[in-house]
Amino acid sequence: MNTSRVDGHTSQAFDADMNEIVNKVLDMGSLVTHQVEKAIYAFIHTDADMARAVISKDDEVNHLEVKIDEHCVQVLVRRQPTAGDLRAVIAAIKTIKDLERIGDQAKRIARSAIKAAEAGAEADRAFPEFEMMGTRVVRMLQDAMTAFRNHDAQEALQVALQDKAIDSDYESILRQNMTYMMEDPRNITRIVEMTWVGRAIERIGDHARNVCEYTIYFVKGRDVRHIDDAQIEAIVQGR
Amino acid sequence: MNTSRVDGHTSQAFDADMNEIVNKVLDMGSLVTHQVEKAIYAFIHTDADMARAVISKDDEVNHLEVKIDEHCVQVLVRRQPTAGDLRAVIAAIKTIKDLERIGDQAKRIARSAIKAAEAGAEADRAFPEFEMMGTRVVRMLQDAMTAFRNHDAQEALQVALQDKAIDSDYESILRQNMTYMMEDPRNITRIVEMTWVGRAIERIGDHARNVCEYTIYFVKGRDVRHIDDAQIEAIVQGR
Repeated sequence: MNTSRVDGHTSQAFDADMNEIVNKVLDMGSLVTHQVEKAIYAFIHTDADMARAVISKDDEVNHLEVKIDEHCVQVLVRRQPTAGDLRAVIAAIKTIKDLERIGDQAKRIARSAIKAAEAGAEADRAFPEFEMMGTRVVRMLQDAMTAFRNHDAQEALQVALQDKAIDSDYESILRQNMTYMMEDPRNITRIVEMTWVGRAIERIGDHARNVCEYTIYFVKGRDVRHIDDAQIEAIVQGR
Repeated sequence: MNTSRVDGHTSQAFDADMNEIVNKVLDMGSLVTHQVEKAIYAFIHTDADMARAVISKDDEVNHLEVKIDEHCVQVLVRRQPTAGDLRAVIAAIKTIKDLERIGDQAKRIARSAIKAAEAGAEADRAFPEFEMMGTRVVRMLQDAMTAFRNHDAQEALQVALQDKAIDSDYESILRQNMTYMMEDPRNITRIVEMTWVGRAIERIGDHARNVCEYTIYFVKGRDVRHIDDAQIEAIVQGR
């Protein structure tokens, strides 16, 4: 693995440290992806036990963030890396912040699942759309972590672009839920809860996109936040 | 200003750089606070012009984040700081991420203001609570930036604790809005929009709390995320 693509500098000691950081981030990414999967499953199937498992596991996610963060700072202090290597570590620090926030959203979804279970909710008409949106976001997360692992800016860009489909899933669930509420106000509490869950999934997509942007920053040495997709593509293609 | 409290090391060149970083973060904090103030005002008074001004100004917030971030990386490369100084720079990098996200929430509120203005909405019964919550969050943001400027961990802790009052404002607006929707389903669209705005303000409070936690990390050299308030207090008091 070459972690120092930006300026050509290579330090074996730094590379070993960076390898360890990347592996820890991948472990955290995998844990967080499972949290999201389980939380959405728990909400769709009103499975309060699974939801409680997600909530209690969130401490582990938080703990990982703090540990990896501290490890990154130690590596920076020990290795005094060059600009390119420094960017790689900063990208890792930013990635775990987004992973931690994805964990928070999973916990939020799990709480909604418990409320739904307590209210005796049954699977109802909005669920096929939810299931689709949930599958999409989990896939996006997995792909974002793969792009991060492979230092693949091209793949990261492709994954980042998937966020648009999730935003559009969310918009359509939102419109649909408004109609349901107006048609049948007795279901408002349930539908508002469902809207929150949709919003949480949409936010997870945003965070997954951020992870992709950090991967591009890490590989290409260019900050691609807040610029449009065509510009990002030009940077990734090296034009 | 002594930016190197953690390990006693002081480098004049680093201190000058750090001073510049702190000033830039304060400028960004001040811009973002104004964005929040204006967005909430625009929503309450359905002032579409002011809302549009907030939205167009968000680019400047994003641009500041990218510029300060790059400046921080340059300082790290140039100065190869010790652990304590490194933490101060990392705290600044994290702070601007939260400030940028506060800017996003302000934009979100501004978009709701425009929707409300287009729908011909008038100031209605939920507004006194909104105004209170908005005033509280703006004050919290200002105080968080003051604690950051003064490297005052004690003050940062006090400000962080204010987040609870905002969460509770939000919970009560949420409950109230549910009741309104059930009573009068014709107003659902407007009330759902109001709920989003309440949620955005609540998230701004969370980000302001994060800023306070980074200030404590910066001053005390201890990561206080994900631990309870009594533990944070013990760290701040140096017990």
